[in-house]
Amino acid sequence: MIFLWKWNLWIVIRERAGLIARGWRWPWGLIEKFWDKVVEAARKAKKLGQEDPRRIIHSLKVGLAITLVSLIYYFNPAYGDFGVSTMWAVLTVVVIFEFSVGATLGRGLNRGLATLLGGALAVGAHYLAHLPGRPAQPIILGIFVFLVAAALSFLRFFPKLKARYDYALLIFILTFSLVAVTGYRDEEVLELAQQRLSTVLIGCATAMLVSIGICPVWAGYDLHKLVAGDVDKLGNFLEGFSEEYFRVLDEGESKDNKTFLQGYKSILTSKNTEDSLANFARWEPGHGCFRFHHPWKQYQKIGSLAGQCAYRIEALSSYPHSHIQAPTEIQSKIQEACTNMSTESGKALKELASAIKSVTKPCSVDPHIVNSKIAAESLKWLLKTHFCEDVDLLELMPTAVVGSLLVEVITYVEKIAESVHDLSSLAHFKDAKPEPEPEPKSTLEQPQKLQQTIQKFSGMDGPHHIITINGSLSIKASGTVVNATSTDVIKGSKTKSNQRHMRHVFIREFITMVFFSISKFL
Amino acid sequence: MIFLWKWNLWIVIRERAGLIARGWRWPWGLIEKFWDKVVEAARKAKKLGQEDPRRIIHSLKVGLAITLVSLIYYFNPAYGDFGVSTMWAVLTVVVIFEFSVGATLGRGLNRGLATLLGGALAVGAHYLAHLPGRPAQPIILGIFVFLVAAALSFLRFFPKLKARYDYALLIFILTFSLVAVTGYRDEEVLELAQQRLSTVLIGCATAMLVSIGICPVWAGYDLHKLVAGDVDKLGNFLEGFSEEYFRVLDEGESKDNKTFLQGYKSILTSKNTEDSLANFARWEPGHGCFRFHHPWKQYQKIGSLAGQCAYRIEALSSYPHSHIQAPTEIQSKIQEACTNMSTESGKALKELASAIKSVTKPCSVDPHIVNSKIAAESLKWLLKTHFCEDVDLLELMPTAVVGSLLVEVITYVEKIAESVHDLSSLAHFKDAKPEPEPEPKSTLEQPQKLQQTIQKFSGMDGPHHIITINGSLSIKASGTVVNATSTDVIKGSKTKSNQRHMRHVFIREFITMVFFSISKFL
Repeated sequence: MIFLWKWNLWIVIRERAGLIARGWRWPWGLIEKFWDKVVEAARKAKKLGQEDPRRIIHSLKVGLAITLVSLIYYFNPAYGDFGVSTMWAVLTVVVIFEFSVGATLGRGLNRGLATLLGGALAVGAHYLAHLPGRPAQPIILGIFVFLVAAALSFLRFFPKLKARYDYALLIFILTFSLVAVTGYRDEEVLELAQQRLSTVLIGCATAMLVSIGICPVWAGYDLHKLVAGDVDKLGNFLEGFSEEYFRVLDEGESKDNKTFLQGYKSILTSKNTEDSLANFARWEPGHGCFRFHHPWKQYQKIGSLAGQCAYRIEALSSYPHSHIQAPTEIQSKIQEACTNMSTESGKALKELASAIKSVTKPCSVDPHIVNSKIAAESLKWLLKTHFCEDVDLLELMPTAVVGSLLVEVITYVEKIAESVHDLSSLAHFKDAKPEPEPEPKSTLEQPQKLQQTIQKFSGMDGPHHIITINGSLSIKASGTVVNATSTDVIKGSKTKSNQRHMRHVFIREFITMVFFSISKFL
Repeated sequence: MIFLWKWNLWIVIRERAGLIARGWRWPWGLIEKFWDKVVEAARKAKKLGQEDPRRIIHSLKVGLAITLVSLIYYFNPAYGDFGVSTMWAVLTVVVIFEFSVGATLGRGLNRGLATLLGGALAVGAHYLAHLPGRPAQPIILGIFVFLVAAALSFLRFFPKLKARYDYALLIFILTFSLVAVTGYRDEEVLELAQQRLSTVLIGCATAMLVSIGICPVWAGYDLHKLVAGDVDKLGNFLEGFSEEYFRVLDEGESKDNKTFLQGYKSILTSKNTEDSLANFARWEPGHGCFRFHHPWKQYQKIGSLAGQCAYRIEALSSYPHSHIQAPTEIQSKIQEACTNMSTESGKALKELASAIKSVTKPCSVDPHIVNSKIAAESLKWLLKTHFCEDVDLLELMPTAVVGSLLVEVITYVEKIAESVHDLSSLAHFKDAKPEPEPEPKSTLEQPQKLQQTIQKFSGMDGPHHIITINGSLSIKASGTVVNATSTDVIKGSKTKSNQRHMRHVFIREFITMVFFSISKFL
């Protein structure tokens, strides 16, 4: 009996202890989970900051701008001149402060001018509604508000207006409704509109000054870098592709883990980023080597051509690898032509990319394009003249398909080159300085190799050979010049000798831009 | 002399008359120009309205919501309970009213909850800053505002937060700054925060009710339609492509003006639209045949696969047409295999599209995919066994390249079919009702033709033939069922017999969703 009693007691104690332990375990597990999430978030935040340190600076700038504008509250005795409208200054800063200068300026100008126009129209509507007498006033005002809100909401569907003035239309509706409606009770509607306008302008000015004054992030420069990077990625792919594709694999080796063969994938979805950056860039004053009327549309054109090229490369890269251990003569000849095509067009693209980056005219691109076209012609000639005796068509297929896709890629490379040439003349790119003496060793190696390759394909016409060799020489000649990055160029142009001149240009451009934007609105 | 004098007078009169005429012409030209622009804008507006009449309804809804909320001003005696905060109701409606219900609900819930949390934290900060005494208060509040603004601005860079809670973060910064800063002067900070919260909630409620109550635009339904349309466009292209591609051209005819061959182009850039629609759809309560937890992610997956397929089709469609007037035997055989591949995969895609549209399980897709795979195998077999005697490789090339690109397209069609099957089981699609008796004529025609085609390629294994014929039968059997559009389905489910039930489900789903969203925030 005692044993049974003890046993029961033991069970009860064990159960209670289990309950208590579980009771403790539950919040403890929750805390642990929460802590894991915090650590994960901190890791992500660190990564985001390291990827682009301008993000941290931007966050601090937002904090600073809001703190600055809230000083009006502290130092404006008893709400001062602005009354309750003071809060519009804080609201404006919070809402218009964006990552890039262009976006902030765009939103700021949109907001400022829409407030001005919306307020003016609302005051007009207020006086108009006053005419027939008190009872009809709210009805007339209600009809006005309904009509303006409906009409401007419809205008927001126009693609051109949506791209650039969407925010202005929204603020116009907002200001009109607020001023027209509050005006019904507040007889000092003119004063209210004026207060609101001045506080909004103070907010806009604060946001713009902080955005431009402290480590500005230029959308134009980002667009320039993005497009150059896209062209560079395509070049990297094409330069490395054929070597990787035709290489005979070792046992158990995979070809899919090469990062330079994956880089182009970001181009497939970069169109929207380019479009919005170009939109923001149009609001920006001149900065670095970009003027106010820099041809940003041309960047969009190059970006879209790069996208088209990337679609073909996507088809190319996903094409199953041929597993040929010992290629036949015709196969190796086709492979050689393909290699030349992709390597030369890759080099052309990389030259173009570095020309964009260094804001210099591309001078040594054409020979590469000519080379790649020669290789394409030689491929066609190979397929035309060599009737395949005892050749398995299925085995020849992958190489031939890759070749014909490359022929198409080359047409896009040519189009990209044309667009970059247009850009360089539209944006007055500098002339690339040729180096005084080309390196003798490397300049001789390449033409010799190329000549050897071309000589294999008999039946080609002569002049091309000469162009090829000259081309290779001139590439090397200007190779070191065009390797400077655009950051260097922007920094370089701000040396002490012309710093004052740059400041003058900047102020002039800024004033021009403000007037230009106002004239576009009015 | 008189003659000279007369002549001079004549010149002076003519000059004066010219000046006056020019003076008149200038404003007249300006008016004409302005009028032309107005006419052009009206034409564009008409086109926009005709393209999607919901745009006009949306504009009227915005007008109505703003007018409704501004009634608070007219009927609230002397600013009533809300004081100056009344304007927050108008501001909220203007800012959160978006085109689709999902976007409006998302913004509304973001705004409401961010205002609540931001206001609460600001009141806390206000009392904390009160503790050390008057002189330190603005400094402490300034530091708080700076820290909160900087930290939350940085959080906006997290991709996941940016996609769904960007607006909440912005409003949190706004409310915190406004309440914390205005609290310095206004001692009744608690009342201010409470007033602001209730007016914001009134604004949110008005916008949501108008958005859902009057002709709601569901982002989920739009996404469903967009993805089904994308798959349909791919199907249209593939069905029509080979016939168009291999057709021998008449003199002076061009192949580039076929609209169904251009339809797929919109898929290349539809990714962003799909992503944002999926984001909005997640906020929406159940509607039509979509529940609150409808698998919207699966639509994104299908959309992205359709995009991948479209990249290949872009490479395919831009491939130069072969100008073969009289194809050789092997060429015509390859062409036949290509035609079968593209037509069958096109049919499979169109079946999938109509299955998505009619919210039924796709039941007759697999046979088409099997057929297209058989055609692919036959192409491979053709290339393997027929050593080309006296065949010009260059002439064979275009057809062969098209064939091998089609083989790749088929792998994507298979992936799309798998994803649609997954979607149909995840979203509990209805079973398609098979028709009681299939039409005998058309069902017999097709398998016979197919069998003839397949019999030409000897060396294929047997079972495939049987599957092909069965497939064609079952396609016809269910062809008429799946042709109902999704509008019909949504309308059909709202018949009088189950209208009350639908309303109950809707209200239940809406409440679930609101609680779910609140629990996600807290």
